[in-house]
Amino acid sequence: MSLTDAYDPENIFARIIRGEAPCYRIYEDDDVLAFLDLYPQSFGHTLVIPRRSAACNLLDVDTDALCKVMVVVQRLARAIVDELQPDGVQVAQFNGAAAGQTVFHIHVHIVPRYAGQDMRVHAAQQGDRGELEQLQARLVRRIAAGA
Amino acid sequence: MSLTDAYDPENIFARIIRGEAPCYRIYEDDDVLAFLDLYPQSFGHTLVIPRRSAACNLLDVDTDALCKVMVVVQRLARAIVDELQPDGVQVAQFNGAAAGQTVFHIHVHIVPRYAGQDMRVHAAQQGDRGELEQLQARLVRRIAAGA
Repeated sequence: MSLTDAYDPENIFARIIRGEAPCYRIYEDDDVLAFLDLYPQSFGHTLVIPRRSAACNLLDVDTDALCKVMVVVQRLARAIVDELQPDGVQVAQFNGAAAGQTVFHIHVHIVPRYAGQDMRVHAAQQGDRGELEQLQARLVRRIAAGA
Repeated sequence: MSLTDAYDPENIFARIIRGEAPCYRIYEDDDVLAFLDLYPQSFGHTLVIPRRSAACNLLDVDTDALCKVMVVVQRLARAIVDELQPDGVQVAQFNGAAAGQTVFHIHVHIVPRYAGQDMRVHAAQQGDRGELEQLQARLVRRIAAGA
């Protein structure tokens, strides 16, 4: 998909927003939704997306929606650090297939990094369902505690 | 450097902000500064930083400063796409040495991606001075044109 292709309302994140597909949700408000990546590159890999902006990428997203997403990215990065104690955190946002984007609803990756552990290849291996559920519960609790 | 170390006001980006070190500046306003990466991972690799927030990373940056940075990231990504016509754009923001952060003043990378070209390893090879100067001139002109 190129940088200028039209938004496809049947993409998987649009379906998650509409409640037509499940996700390991860890946060939501009127404008932003966050859930665990099903193919995590590390323990705690989280995606943050705008709910109301039908945008493929950074180029076409509403600026206000982008800011709302980034406020949540910061809040969740803090919660993830508090809960999972990684050594670092990578934030990444890919635009276009040539940049590694695979779902064409704009999203921001939060990838905790642990010293001595390489990142797994993206979209290569599905996370363990039980592990994702436990992680979801931990992060929901931590975020609710006001991290 | 860990995620919780104190801000060092002698880091190179703080020195650039104070005018004590040079950079290939392509954009500035009261709150945000953007310049070409001296060790580009691809043609057009740009860094965007807050000028007034003495923050190491996403965890300690002022939320308003973060939004101002992201508004400029979006504006410059659009200008870079218009001017350089990459096939994709990666946006990345690293927190902590374990996540690949090398300068401990928060910064956002804009890395244009070109089909069939791998990204160069970061901080491995300094960009050609003449090429950086030409690129700076092109992007300054494009941004001034209101891209």
